Amino acid sequence: MKHFLNTQDLSRAELDALLAQAAAFKRTPFGNDLKGRAIALVFFNPSMRTRTSFELGAFQLGGHAIVLQPGKDAWPIEFDAGTVMDGEAEEHIAEVARVLGRYVDLIGVRAFPKFVDWAEDRQDKVLRAFARYSPVPVINMETITHPCQELAHALALQEHFGTTDLRGKKYVLTWTYHPKPLNTAVANSALTIATRLGMDVTLLCPTPDYVLDERYMDWAARNVAESGGSLTVSHDIENAYRGADVVYAKSWGALPFFGRWQDEKPIRDAHRHFIVDERKMALTNDAVFSHCLPLRRNVKATDAVMDSPACIAIDEAENRLHVQKAVMAWLASQAGKRESGMGSR
Amino acid sequence: MKHFLNTQDLSRAELDALLAQAAAFKRTPFGNDLKGRAIALVFFNPSMRTRTSFELGAFQLGGHAIVLQPGKDAWPIEFDAGTVMDGEAEEHIAEVARVLGRYVDLIGVRAFPKFVDWAEDRQDKVLRAFARYSPVPVINMETITHPCQELAHALALQEHFGTTDLRGKKYVLTWTYHPKPLNTAVANSALTIATRLGMDVTLLCPTPDYVLDERYMDWAARNVAESGGSLTVSHDIENAYRGADVVYAKSWGALPFFGRWQDEKPIRDAHRHFIVDERKMALTNDAVFSHCLPLRRNVKATDAVMDSPACIAIDEAENRLHVQKAVMAWLASQAGKRESGMGSR
Amino acid sequence: MKHFLNTQDLSRAELDALLAQAAAFKRTPFGNDLKGRAIALVFFNPSMRTRTSFELGAFQLGGHAIVLQPGKDAWPIEFDAGTVMDGEAEEHIAEVARVLGRYVDLIGVRAFPKFVDWAEDRQDKVLRAFARYSPVPVINMETITHPCQELAHALALQEHFGTTDLRGKKYVLTWTYHPKPLNTAVANSALTIATRLGMDVTLLCPTPDYVLDERYMDWAARNVAESGGSLTVSHDIENAYRGADVVYAKSWGALPFFGRWQDEKPIRDAHRHFIVDERKMALTNDAVFSHCLPLRRNVKATDAVMDSPACIAIDEAENRLHVQKAVMAWLASQAGKRESGMGSR
Repeated sequence: MKHFLNTQDLSRAELDALLAQAAAFKRTPFGNDLKGRAIALVFFNPSMRTRTSFELGAFQLGGHAIVLQPGKDAWPIEFDAGTVMDGEAEEHIAEVARVLGRYVDLIGVRAFPKFVDWAEDRQDKVLRAFARYSPVPVINMETITHPCQELAHALALQEHFGTTDLRGKKYVLTWTYHPKPLNTAVANSALTIATRLGMDVTLLCPTPDYVLDERYMDWAARNVAESGGSLTVSHDIENAYRGADVVYAKSWGALPFFGRWQDEKPIRDAHRHFIVDERKMALTNDAVFSHCLPLRRNVKATDAVMDSPACIAIDEAENRLHVQKAVMAWLASQAGKRESGMGSR
Repeated sequence: MKHFLNTQDLSRAELDALLAQAAAFKRTPFGNDLKGRAIALVFFNPSMRTRTSFELGAFQLGGHAIVLQPGKDAWPIEFDAGTVMDGEAEEHIAEVARVLGRYVDLIGVRAFPKFVDWAEDRQDKVLRAFARYSPVPVINMETITHPCQELAHALALQEHFGTTDLRGKKYVLTWTYHPKPLNTAVANSALTIATRLGMDVTLLCPTPDYVLDERYMDWAARNVAESGGSLTVSHDIENAYRGADVVYAKSWGALPFFGRWQDEKPIRDAHRHFIVDERKMALTNDAVFSHCLPLRRNVKATDAVMDSPACIAIDEAENRLHVQKAVMAWLASQAGKRESGMGSR
Repeated sequence: MKHFLNTQDLSRAELDALLAQAAAFKRTPFGNDLKGRAIALVFFNPSMRTRTSFELGAFQLGGHAIVLQPGKDAWPIEFDAGTVMDGEAEEHIAEVARVLGRYVDLIGVRAFPKFVDWAEDRQDKVLRAFARYSPVPVINMETITHPCQELAHALALQEHFGTTDLRGKKYVLTWTYHPKPLNTAVANSALTIATRLGMDVTLLCPTPDYVLDERYMDWAARNVAESGGSLTVSHDIENAYRGADVVYAKSWGALPFFGRWQDEKPIRDAHRHFIVDERKMALTNDAVFSHCLPLRRNVKATDAVMDSPACIAIDEAENRLHVQKAVMAWLASQAGKRESGMGSR
């Protein structure tokens, strides 16, 4: 059974089909692709765009989204197998996923890292456990990667450049300062999709400590080998921006300091100048700028950049709706072919 | 683009049309006015009636409501322009409103005062910021005024008196005791709509400190000048109730004591006798009684008054559903005429 | 007006009709039984299955569910009559129920015991107050009983045994250990429905202190007298399991220790061996096992039992959807006959 956990699991044909279907939904928003179907949106972390776009997308396709927040308005959940559950968790993922799978047709999961131990977080346990036990397709709504954001970002770039072929574009993924260490999910995802689409990608970050997990560096290397394009790591702002066609900004915590963030803080604080501003954008090839949002203005990017015509962050955010409808419609059509876990269908 | 921020922004013709449409929806609840449309309900404060009536109203008109609670299941938001966002807020209203406006057709906002500095709260910053940045119509779900309650109240009075012409009715807006200082929103709104409809309005409160903000006193004065009727401030319970046709009760905090509520407490506590009871109601011209709810029984009004045939608070609450459907249908039809911010429509 | 507060309030014909309708909805999930109708789901306690199954059930029947969490995203509520409401509660149930009843067609209520004073909790005040003041039918979503779970359990047993006639089956309701004292609701309900259906019921618990409230023991005795079958209380695990056709597990707090749980803890801790395991199941007549969920694995039942073909807990959980649709459709059709409290219908 197909899930939507990472774009790297998709064939290039599947990826292109999703982006084409998303563009079609953007032109014609209503459909019956989810008529009578339901999706459970399981949020272990807060959300505005993701929740709104999934809930609305289900509605526009004739379906219904049910929003659950375990440990908030539902039960805390155990994810490890074989545990003697005498702690906080009242229920095991085996039951949660199997029961939800009897009720709904799709399950979306958002589960951020705990930021204590990357060796633990990089296993993506919550998402993997849902995918393991669920009888229906599971969608990654952001865990340690954010594939829905990847599709929305890719579609926004295709719209901006007026072509689905982004090969040869100079793409800069720049780290920016943020007062707290953040999830690497969107950075991992940007690196994955930008290389997948054959762009010449520069990962710009303060020091080698900010290079991303080897899993995603490896995906990027494999993508470059398959799709053409290139991958460069740089700590030189001017060189990275010079001639860029795309600037994509994100802040993230340095993996070697995972769990001892007080040690990373002085390094992070010393690199506030990574903020995306007009001076840096002036070095580019009239580059388009984007960010996944939420964005702290005048910390990650200046008001001038955010309010400039070069900024397509709002278009990218809108595209979340369209790409997620494509993902839900695709998975629901796949699932329609299997024998449903639910006796009543 | 039209918003629904205050009834004072509406022409008398628009106001009458909304009340007539609300009465029509009360007779015939279902329609396609919001077919395929969505409204985001953004709650910075809790709600029962507002949330239920908006969500149900959207459903009955073929639309869908998405309930968001920033800082609870969404991000804390920055409302000032030009800020260096290195505090708590993860996102600026510019992005929140613009992105929501790409997803949905209408945005409802509830944002109560912070009760620290009235000079700050009276700017109604949150609502104004949504209206400034949103590409779709914004609806006031209660901030420092409560225009949806005004319409529900007006419709309930029109139903009770069997006429849309309420001119000449003696209307008493009475302050009541409440253990905590409350928002002046409903009091500001009652004063606004009662004078707008040409009634002879008495604002009954313990001391001059409880007179409402000059903005709303000015609106009332202007309304009286335009619609006929009158406005009187009184601290004499017996005189105020004598001969009244309408008694509307609400508790609110005294503006001069804003932020130093311990100084107001003894004054408030000394006026528990403002409770609406049978003895006071006996002074009236068989007056109808109402309140916006929630109401603390035997603190703001006695059980005897609440359970008497004179009480139309439940009818007024029901009317929230009908008037809000009229407001949503009106704004959606306006918005239908503009070029939508969303590429897909 | 009909409510759904306890199965004991239903005639046997009504009970059988609900189970038959649930089986029909399981075969054919979609309908118009709630077309344009709405149900308010009022949760004073968290929920996953109940909320998902009610919300989805309303959607599948053309209706809409509105989820409210008083004191969380709505107001704290007063339930006693005649109170001077100068405490925490901002609103009285009289207004809450009457207003909700103007908006929606059905009201579901979940309100667990406070676990301080059973004499108080056993009055089921919250549910009773909603039923007293609501102009529309009220559904028990679990208070001190859980009738929706009863129907789901009964349907799962009927499916398992391939017959609606469960008379003569040996049914064991076994207490199990849980680190915290839990609600007796599901135990009260299992005892009620198992005796109602004429099974030979054994209530297996550590000591006489764990026998259930006399109200439910009396219901069980009355049911046995009417339906045949039998009721036995046992503290002997081996005798209870031997020859059983059904094993239903639940943990609950001992009523004599209500509010002084530290005194019960050593007794509870001394009976961890009540866990449902393969050794005990081997004593049965190839019994089917179930539990209402959530279940702590390897505390209440072992992984081996939960993952065995004998476990129908997931089927029972799925049935929540089907039986609740039957309950909502039945009550809505009843309510359709009365003069609606809402002027607009």
